[in-house]
Amino acid sequence: MQPVNRTNLADSAAENLRAEIVSGRWGVGDRIPNETVLTELLSVSRGTVREAVRVLVSQGLLDTRQGSGTYVRSTVDPAGALDRVKRAGLRDQWEARAALDVEAARLAAIRHTPADLKRMTLLLQARGTVADGGYEAFGQRDIAFHKSIVEASGNRAIVGLYDFFTASILETIHSTLQGDVPEPDDEAHAAIVTAIATGDPDRAAAAVRAFMAPVLRELDRLLSQ
Amino acid sequence: MQPVNRTNLADSAAENLRAEIVSGRWGVGDRIPNETVLTELLSVSRGTVREAVRVLVSQGLLDTRQGSGTYVRSTVDPAGALDRVKRAGLRDQWEARAALDVEAARLAAIRHTPADLKRMTLLLQARGTVADGGYEAFGQRDIAFHKSIVEASGNRAIVGLYDFFTASILETIHSTLQGDVPEPDDEAHAAIVTAIATGDPDRAAAAVRAFMAPVLRELDRLLSQ
Repeated sequence: MQPVNRTNLADSAAENLRAEIVSGRWGVGDRIPNETVLTELLSVSRGTVREAVRVLVSQGLLDTRQGSGTYVRSTVDPAGALDRVKRAGLRDQWEARAALDVEAARLAAIRHTPADLKRMTLLLQARGTVADGGYEAFGQRDIAFHKSIVEASGNRAIVGLYDFFTASILETIHSTLQGDVPEPDDEAHAAIVTAIATGDPDRAAAAVRAFMAPVLRELDRLLSQ
Repeated sequence: MQPVNRTNLADSAAENLRAEIVSGRWGVGDRIPNETVLTELLSVSRGTVREAVRVLVSQGLLDTRQGSGTYVRSTVDPAGALDRVKRAGLRDQWEARAALDVEAARLAAIRHTPADLKRMTLLLQARGTVADGGYEAFGQRDIAFHKSIVEASGNRAIVGLYDFFTASILETIHSTLQGDVPEPDDEAHAAIVTAIATGDPDRAAAAVRAFMAPVLRELDRLLSQ
């Protein structure tokens, strides 16, 4: 048996099982049919059924309990939801990340510790210019500054999403844009930290919105060329 | 050969390759070492290397070009980023979704069409009460209303994230909370539509924030019990 074909069969069987789960036909906590039944339902070998189930267990959709059977653990299809987010395009991803920047600043204004503020300030001082080590190194220092604000939000879901968008945008931007997105200056960056330090969430959100507006406008212009 | 063991080996080999890519050791556009070299590097068979590469191709990290080799297509690890988002817990996920609700209303105020407004209004009228078909059916109608606002944002990344959080929260909430999160009344829902219809993004955002504040407060109280 060809390993590649076997894996393709298991993938296809896993997709069929996933469709049953995501459609809600099998709900959370339901026991799914046993291997013998699945073998018939999916018209594949018992080994392929086992591989397909293992894939869905590793993705958190199924749960195998020794001696009891296999149960639906989750009907959320993270792969499907994230696929749509990935296909959303640079403009939408950028706008979504900017929304996370704003919300994070709002939360950071309420929740920041003195250590958080110190970290933002140090990272802003270390940010420097493109002349220090080139474009990529500067980009990484700039991201480290913005990330320190996102982390001060104290929300791990927002931090995870921010990481995802940052990596995805960095990658797309080189292949998509015919020009550079403007980089706000040190003063614009410092205004965000000052607003967060006041503890006023509306002021922090407004500072980030003012920071982002010209960047999003220029992005629109570049993408419509 | 046991199929399960083979797949485990391939998974483990894929993880090792993924680590090289995500770490940035191999950048986007780089050609990765050929099968013979990878077989030695990973200490696995050539068949296992092929399976591991196939997994990463299907996840969008690698790209195989006929007769030329295998290249890094992306260093974004969606699985890793989303795993962190999934592990973030109900409170953080709810707060992140509320932030998407606010941003979506802001964008919907600017971008909505007459058809969008009509749809929101119809879905709000159809929302009814828990008495109409029970809790789950009511929950689905409530989600359909809020989703119509998110869709009017015109941002596909935000729509995808919203779907993910909604499904994930629905699932967690039954197993986590000792009590019901309060459901704002029809008037509170209608106030959002009215604010979006004015076309003023700040007013729309403020309406959703006012709507969400008591819900988030009650969620905090329930989770701290």
